[in-house]
Amino acid sequence: MKPVKYTKLVLTLTCALSLTAPLNAQKSSTEVMSPAQLNLMPIPASIRMQSGRLSITDSFNVAIKNYEDDRLRAGISRMRTRLAGRTVLTLPSELATDDNTATLVVQCERAGEIIPSLSENESYSLEVTDKQARLVAPTVVGALRGLETFLQLLQSDRDGYYLPGTKIQDQPRFPWRGLLIDVGRHYEPMEVLKRNLDAMAAVKLNVFHWHLTEDQGFRVESKKFPKLHTLGSDGLYYTQDQVREIINYARDRGIRVMPEFDIPGHSTSWLVGHPELGSAPGPYKIERGAGIFEPALDPTREQTYKFLETFLGEMAALFPDAYMHIGGDENEGKQWDRNPQIQAFMKAKGIKDNHALQAYFNQRVLKILQKHGKKMIGWEEIMHPDLPNDAVIHSWRGPASLAEAARKGYHGILSAGYYIDLIFPASQHYLADPLPQDTTLTTEEAKFVLGGEATMWGEWVSPETIDSRIWPRTAAIAERLWSPRNVTDVEDMYRRLAVISRQLEEVGLTHEKNYGMLLRRLAASDNTAPLRTLASIIEPVKEYRRYEMRPQTMLSPLTGLVDATRPDSQTARHFATNVDSFLSDAPHFAAYRPDLEHTLTEWLTASRELDPMIDRSAALQEARPLVSSLADIAEAGLEAIAHLSSGDPVTAEWRDAKLARLDEAVKPKAALEFVVITSVRKLVIAAAELPQLKATSPAEWKKRVTTLAAPPAPSKP
Amino acid sequence: MKPVKYTKLVLTLTCALSLTAPLNAQKSSTEVMSPAQLNLMPIPASIRMQSGRLSITDSFNVAIKNYEDDRLRAGISRMRTRLAGRTVLTLPSELATDDNTATLVVQCERAGEIIPSLSENESYSLEVTDKQARLVAPTVVGALRGLETFLQLLQSDRDGYYLPGTKIQDQPRFPWRGLLIDVGRHYEPMEVLKRNLDAMAAVKLNVFHWHLTEDQGFRVESKKFPKLHTLGSDGLYYTQDQVREIINYARDRGIRVMPEFDIPGHSTSWLVGHPELGSAPGPYKIERGAGIFEPALDPTREQTYKFLETFLGEMAALFPDAYMHIGGDENEGKQWDRNPQIQAFMKAKGIKDNHALQAYFNQRVLKILQKHGKKMIGWEEIMHPDLPNDAVIHSWRGPASLAEAARKGYHGILSAGYYIDLIFPASQHYLADPLPQDTTLTTEEAKFVLGGEATMWGEWVSPETIDSRIWPRTAAIAERLWSPRNVTDVEDMYRRLAVISRQLEEVGLTHEKNYGMLLRRLAASDNTAPLRTLASIIEPVKEYRRYEMRPQTMLSPLTGLVDATRPDSQTARHFATNVDSFLSDAPHFAAYRPDLEHTLTEWLTASRELDPMIDRSAALQEARPLVSSLADIAEAGLEAIAHLSSGDPVTAEWRDAKLARLDEAVKPKAALEFVVITSVRKLVIAAAELPQLKATSPAEWKKRVTTLAAPPAPSKP
Repeated sequence: MKPVKYTKLVLTLTCALSLTAPLNAQKSSTEVMSPAQLNLMPIPASIRMQSGRLSITDSFNVAIKNYEDDRLRAGISRMRTRLAGRTVLTLPSELATDDNTATLVVQCERAGEIIPSLSENESYSLEVTDKQARLVAPTVVGALRGLETFLQLLQSDRDGYYLPGTKIQDQPRFPWRGLLIDVGRHYEPMEVLKRNLDAMAAVKLNVFHWHLTEDQGFRVESKKFPKLHTLGSDGLYYTQDQVREIINYARDRGIRVMPEFDIPGHSTSWLVGHPELGSAPGPYKIERGAGIFEPALDPTREQTYKFLETFLGEMAALFPDAYMHIGGDENEGKQWDRNPQIQAFMKAKGIKDNHALQAYFNQRVLKILQKHGKKMIGWEEIMHPDLPNDAVIHSWRGPASLAEAARKGYHGILSAGYYIDLIFPASQHYLADPLPQDTTLTTEEAKFVLGGEATMWGEWVSPETIDSRIWPRTAAIAERLWSPRNVTDVEDMYRRLAVISRQLEEVGLTHEKNYGMLLRRLAASDNTAPLRTLASIIEPVKEYRRYEMRPQTMLSPLTGLVDATRPDSQTARHFATNVDSFLSDAPHFAAYRPDLEHTLTEWLTASRELDPMIDRSAALQEARPLVSSLADIAEAGLEAIAHLSSGDPVTAEWRDAKLARLDEAVKPKAALEFVVITSVRKLVIAAAELPQLKATSPAEWKKRVTTLAAPPAPSKP
Repeated sequence: MKPVKYTKLVLTLTCALSLTAPLNAQKSSTEVMSPAQLNLMPIPASIRMQSGRLSITDSFNVAIKNYEDDRLRAGISRMRTRLAGRTVLTLPSELATDDNTATLVVQCERAGEIIPSLSENESYSLEVTDKQARLVAPTVVGALRGLETFLQLLQSDRDGYYLPGTKIQDQPRFPWRGLLIDVGRHYEPMEVLKRNLDAMAAVKLNVFHWHLTEDQGFRVESKKFPKLHTLGSDGLYYTQDQVREIINYARDRGIRVMPEFDIPGHSTSWLVGHPELGSAPGPYKIERGAGIFEPALDPTREQTYKFLETFLGEMAALFPDAYMHIGGDENEGKQWDRNPQIQAFMKAKGIKDNHALQAYFNQRVLKILQKHGKKMIGWEEIMHPDLPNDAVIHSWRGPASLAEAARKGYHGILSAGYYIDLIFPASQHYLADPLPQDTTLTTEEAKFVLGGEATMWGEWVSPETIDSRIWPRTAAIAERLWSPRNVTDVEDMYRRLAVISRQLEEVGLTHEKNYGMLLRRLAASDNTAPLRTLASIIEPVKEYRRYEMRPQTMLSPLTGLVDATRPDSQTARHFATNVDSFLSDAPHFAAYRPDLEHTLTEWLTASRELDPMIDRSAALQEARPLVSSLADIAEAGLEAIAHLSSGDPVTAEWRDAKLARLDEAVKPKAALEFVVITSVRKLVIAAAELPQLKATSPAEWKKRVTTLAAPPAPSKP
């Protein structure tokens, strides 16, 4: 798939949608802002700029036209609070009565779905002129989406705050745009969920997938079976009142709340209070480790279904969403293999393997859900010839398996590519598409692909760190699921992501501010500068290597350097760009040289200052090997630049020694890895190729630069 | 009062208390840490160091001996979580069964008061040896206090974490050590209160004074009179369930919760729903301004007392604390003056003025409180010959009025000197003493002085900024109220305060992390460096000048530069010290010169970078005049240093021009003021005095330096 440039895209879109814009808007081009200067995320389906600007002053007010209700008024009030916070203007708190003079008019026709649903109309249009902004939407939820766009349009210059003239027509590409938060492995307090719901609304996500039960914790109060939460949660669970509070909070923001009760595997915490449900006699203890565990519900006993009938009935009444997620993943069936009664049952029923046994279980569960008026959704393990077609498949394998399901007539959503717990950069998630351009699905089949969900699995997140694992990367995923498929300019995505990330702090997210706090705690000092320098170019190891390299339990503190550092190093991205520009500037090697030298010197200085810091703070001792690698990296880079700039050739020994040091540096330490080494390798190899360079044309050299020290193929998220 | 040095103090204390320390501990002096290296706050009543160190590793565990209960176990669990977070060690989550081998043994004898009270025994002793730490306390609350000391003793070096050998005997100087949080003017969410309760516990404060009603908001649910909270709070109030949650949360930390219902003045929000209680007919609206307002309850109608009887009865049942605060402040009686019925009542009863009328009101309220088993406390306006002796006087005037009350046999607490909303430095609060050394009270009379309270009045604090207004300064007040009177070394206080401030982040306080967030929002950029430089040397104007200079309402956003900047600039303190050292180094003027030049150059650079930043972010426009002052300050300082260092004399014109610029710079702008100007004035004047200096002896000059540009006498907090 080729990324298209943003400006080109906009043209395509506006043409495609044949928006009737006044021709004279094109004339006063000096006043018309380019859409590439905007910071919208997700990018709307169609946007066209027009002349004029709407000033935002302390007389800013909002009028509601046609339909209005509490949800709309509350949404406007939240928008106004954020607008006031950003502009430091005291804004009138009352709604305007005259929609001719109001700064913003919000016009919608109806409440929309009482319970947020898949069929909600989320479209809106927003036109900004000199005089007024008009937000028009068929439903309140559409208006809420438009209010977020309104806030993102805010600009400032010497003359104050304003919105540029624009005409936006917007609706989502997919109706299911979710974020899964796993509160089973680590409990997250109410305020963490709330601020994440606000952040979801800010980027137009609409499904909160609440992963409530896991081997490591049963997090919802059951009045029918209180031993589930009292014995299975260490006291860390949501009361039913709190569940309703979250559901209302989400509903107010146009967000569905879909609960997941992961069965038959991932169920150790259920069995602590109810060992009779297990496929082995027990007793069971809350699991403290990470991984796949054996405990599974016994699918052969009627008692199990009687229990589920009551429990899921209770939950079906608590959660109004049409869907209930039953998990169904990663059950290896080891307990089943060892249980003679289960084996006898399978033989008697002609169930030939564990997958078939789980399908039998799913059928039974499906009937329970249907009885309670719920549709079933589960991880793709639930796919089976016997699975009825109103079940939804949740794919962790990829678009191909989603397409396969669609061809079989199953609705599906994608999470493969959106596993944000694996610490891959936003760019990788951004380019994962539930319906890639090369899909072989017909238009009709493609409709079965409902969207996708980012998955925040909870092994290594605490209330202090979870925001930084979800945000800002999830905003890029939100754009993938909302915006047209051809919005794929990674560079522009990162530009906008930086702005949106800062705005997300307005709803209380801690992804940025807890970074400094964690570093201060680790350094046991207010002077964290050298530690920050190190942390800016390392990232936690990807995929599931953290646990292998640095085993912990669910009771371990998540306050180490690996927890403070974040995915998607901006410093590394800039450094890589600068190195490429520098190398392309052969034979002068002048471009960005001062920048690069400054950066590398900072790394070298930091490496020297970090040793005494580590001496004073034992929590940093595991970082000691990183510090010596930091020095090696900085020295290799500085020496290579010196050689390149002076034209002074290096010896093969020098090159081999430096590359050997970098090979050492590239090895993860303390579950952390440097993400700048490919660029430094380029510098070293380029220095070694100086003699050949003299025989190379500039154009050839530019090509060569891109292949220098080609990085290993990245692992897939 | 003369500050004594910490080391001297410790000696005094240990002698005074005749602690029997093994003599040989003195011998192995190389292993004995000095108490001046510790970071305890508040400083214990007695501490003596001894040899040895107790290693803290991942086998750290805690045993409980003798009495134990849920509160103690929860306190130990919180301590362990913070210890784990700081050390990044996975600690056993179970209690140890063998108190001989446990790392920490907590031994207490009883629960203590069921409802935290003034007579709670909070003493404890803590001994740390190579083998074990032993915390012994008569009550669980004493043990909780000791657990905080335990955490503060944690040290680290190359060999890992440890506690130094020590023997501490500790108890508070005053039994009433409070923090008032005014949630009337700005509502604060539950999590704000909870994290502040945790912070209070961390510095051994024991009274949360919950200022629940104000002209601007009635913040507690009344089931008897629901119009109070539904019409008086904009929907921002605490339900009775939430009140109980806070009371339990506080009780778990050994903190009393004393509610305040401020009457008869400060009661506009009551009258919105119940205008019949007012002294003028109404209708009333929730007050949005700041200041003193006229509405007051009508003290002449029986209906008022019937209402209060029911309402205060409901509250007396909700709040278990023995005391109820009735405010009583700032009622100017203007409504009373204008109400003929009230005037007639006064005449009939022979009540000669408003003060007497309020005394009559207080008498009636007192009877109601007594009926419900509560003791009355009120601001010192309630003092009156008719006031019975079991009322407590809350002084906002100062220790003298407190002493006067004590002589009359009234108990009292001090808040004068602890008004943290006035933005004075910690040092000022620190030196305010409820019972100053020069008190004229007898020992018996002095016992009537119960302690004091920091007051966080809520006009200009939001959930985002309140922590930075309370902390870390309140830790210095906590020390004043807990530690021996002669603990008054300001420099050492600041050294420890910096450490404790960082540790307070562990309980979730945002006083440090929201600083960067607010600056990022203002700058609309991740690069806040120049803004941070400016913000580091300005402070909000003191006392009540903010409102005069920059009027806002209770609905205004608290996101401006004045909200981001903090009291008590550390940069300014360091700068002042360095300037004095530099000037004292005459005639060389070499000491700290590079530091000073570096700092001043940074200011100059920032002033240049700030203009384009302000162009891009209109929220910063009010800072423009500060930027030009910043340049003037930096230039004056740099030029003066250049002259002093080169010995090159300045002209009188130069001096006058520079001082004129500084006189301009010293004027507050945007309700902010520079706090480095006195130091820069010193440099300028010293440069002008260079010729005289040549005739001055070094000793004379050193004296002269301290008087150069003597600052105006500071206003009182």
